[in-house]
Amino acid sequence: MKSFLKYSKSCDFPIENLPYGVFTTPEKTNPRIGVAIADSILDLSEVSHLFTGPELKSNQHVFKAPTLNLLMGLSPKAWKEARETIQSILSENNKILQNDHKLRQRALISQACATMHLPVNIGDYTDFFSSVYHATNAGLMFADPNNPLTPNWKHLPVAYHGRASTVVISGTPIHRPHGQMVPPDATDPVFGPSQLMDFELEMAFFVGGSNKLGEPIKIEKAEDHIFGFVVMNDWSARDIQKWEYRPLGPFLAKNLGTTISPWVVTTFALEPFKTDNFPQDPQPLPYLRHSDKCNYDINLQVDITPKDGNVSTTICRSNFKYLYWTPKQQIAHHTITGCKMNPGDLLGSGTISGKTPDSFGSLVELSWKGTKPLSLRDGSQRTFLQDGDTVTMTAVCKGDTYNIGFGSCVGTLLPPKKL
Amino acid sequence: MKSFLKYSKSCDFPIENLPYGVFTTPEKTNPRIGVAIADSILDLSEVSHLFTGPELKSNQHVFKAPTLNLLMGLSPKAWKEARETIQSILSENNKILQNDHKLRQRALISQACATMHLPVNIGDYTDFFSSVYHATNAGLMFADPNNPLTPNWKHLPVAYHGRASTVVISGTPIHRPHGQMVPPDATDPVFGPSQLMDFELEMAFFVGGSNKLGEPIKIEKAEDHIFGFVVMNDWSARDIQKWEYRPLGPFLAKNLGTTISPWVVTTFALEPFKTDNFPQDPQPLPYLRHSDKCNYDINLQVDITPKDGNVSTTICRSNFKYLYWTPKQQIAHHTITGCKMNPGDLLGSGTISGKTPDSFGSLVELSWKGTKPLSLRDGSQRTFLQDGDTVTMTAVCKGDTYNIGFGSCVGTLLPPKKL
Repeated sequence: MKSFLKYSKSCDFPIENLPYGVFTTPEKTNPRIGVAIADSILDLSEVSHLFTGPELKSNQHVFKAPTLNLLMGLSPKAWKEARETIQSILSENNKILQNDHKLRQRALISQACATMHLPVNIGDYTDFFSSVYHATNAGLMFADPNNPLTPNWKHLPVAYHGRASTVVISGTPIHRPHGQMVPPDATDPVFGPSQLMDFELEMAFFVGGSNKLGEPIKIEKAEDHIFGFVVMNDWSARDIQKWEYRPLGPFLAKNLGTTISPWVVTTFALEPFKTDNFPQDPQPLPYLRHSDKCNYDINLQVDITPKDGNVSTTICRSNFKYLYWTPKQQIAHHTITGCKMNPGDLLGSGTISGKTPDSFGSLVELSWKGTKPLSLRDGSQRTFLQDGDTVTMTAVCKGDTYNIGFGSCVGTLLPPKKL
Repeated sequence: MKSFLKYSKSCDFPIENLPYGVFTTPEKTNPRIGVAIADSILDLSEVSHLFTGPELKSNQHVFKAPTLNLLMGLSPKAWKEARETIQSILSENNKILQNDHKLRQRALISQACATMHLPVNIGDYTDFFSSVYHATNAGLMFADPNNPLTPNWKHLPVAYHGRASTVVISGTPIHRPHGQMVPPDATDPVFGPSQLMDFELEMAFFVGGSNKLGEPIKIEKAEDHIFGFVVMNDWSARDIQKWEYRPLGPFLAKNLGTTISPWVVTTFALEPFKTDNFPQDPQPLPYLRHSDKCNYDINLQVDITPKDGNVSTTICRSNFKYLYWTPKQQIAHHTITGCKMNPGDLLGSGTISGKTPDSFGSLVELSWKGTKPLSLRDGSQRTFLQDGDTVTMTAVCKGDTYNIGFGSCVGTLLPPKKL
């Protein structure tokens, strides 16, 4: 497949990708839906009239909406038709857009000129804890080194409800938060800026379609409810977390901000990068069993760029495929008691750590609770984040003839605000 | 203050109350905002033109909205003006509505003819754990009987993020959920319908106004962000909860449904029922300190009505005032790390148990983990809920000359759905 737009083999956004996002431009400030292609954006609001297939001809309004929720509310059939239509519009054999100078000027925007926005009105956000390496590391450091995993961990995908209102788009600065924490060797809490700010390397997917309250989504149908994926940084204040999380789980340590990358990469684009599921032992209960592949080979990387110097250091290389629980299992479990899902709900993977220390997905693991400082290329060291640090997470599937890239999930930690 | 509408002294909805709700009628099926008065509803969409004060004359559209979110997004000044305007419209001295037969017919609806709906599009829902008696009972039964409270409990209002999509309006049936649980004396989980279904007697308030991400709401300003209260039943599957909740807190055991009463009682109506705050020892950190009253004397009651027989038994009498942490402290804590609040966010109190066994707000406490069955008036016994049981929660402030009632929060537990 070839587009009339040219790009290199290593481009994040070839015609096989076509991730969805929401953007504005200085000339046109209303948020609208686009797909990334090469270094451009195809503004779908300008070409909505070209979606004339059986699923979409009466649904063209979804491409004029300010978020992806309406599109996510349609069926996988409609999503497939949308992809095929967009591929056709961008194909080198199709002259409709290619040769219409006026339409091209309106509909093809340079990514460099666009501002990206949160692509979805997120109703609910859930964060899983699905990497066995991460869960084991957490247990080794903070619970029982002899039994690092809780007894339930291999029987169900552990998760908790997160805060939807604090999910922000890549580029949004995050202030070091104030809160309660207990200093080492003390028993009473003190109040002040968090001293142990961390990132968590995650991916997350948006739910497509919905179910009714009380009606579980069966594992056989679960894949129909995965619209697409983003990269996510679940910023975490470890000292606040440690003090607050018993008995009801993390709360303020996580709701200071959660950053997602702007482009939603669909399951169609990821299909060629499916890989074997992580081996599960013991076999899970029947409602969580599936033998088809629902795991992806997605290379992940985390870079830290200190405030001054502008020198980046890659501190983690991980991969989505290290996750123990699959997205299908996450959906089937999440809804087994009847929980209602809505289009645009966000389900995070939890920190994606691999087996080796260079693949750990958070600073608390990389520095092993601060006992092993990391050396950055500018000569400085890190146990946890310093003010001014920019954390950049990237994800890419590497193919023989093209890549499927996610772009990046970026955020800078700013000093605490004056209270 | 007297209305031209007549009602008894024990009426839930006198002119001093005026709670907001969203309703439809068979004749007019679009959801709209009303206030309860006596056994009627004043349809605010029909009288929006009468809101001509300085705060509301340019905001009349909020009364034509299908939810309360826009109204909740205005300021306390606007809410006060709305209340005064509605009191004036309903006053016996005001003839505008009273003597306009046509307008009266359109704007005053019998509650018996209306269907109530979820009054708010809830962005995020948080549940606290703010009764020291409930937290102590939970600790005595399930954690360390010698140290029933976690070390953080008296230093901060413990809470967790809940699932907004599963908050439903009073009257919505709840199906007994399926899930994983570990039978007594077993170590591996089994799958099946929950055997330990419970209610939790709570109250919850809706947030008014908002803050920016990263900007805490200070305790001095917190009361400006409390719009009004409802009664809430946080249905809980105790066996699922016990197995899943470590280490990240309750998840599926709670997202099977959370029922709220339909009428949102404002802080203006509750003002005369303010009572002393619960004594706090140790004194909390400065960001949580306030000396003004932010506690309410609200009588709470739970009744169970078994499926057949139709005989109700009151099994719990409690009071909002037993809560250790105040709503102001809950808001100040929730936002201290910068968490963004939006109009219509819902903050639950956690189970409101008093000191004495007859005031415990859940069956697991009332039956002490199932060891002390309760006798119902129809001759049956309960440790946990049985299929067909209807749980009715009511709340009322009892004044010398009038009551402020909340109506009721009702739900029936239906048998598990066939999977």
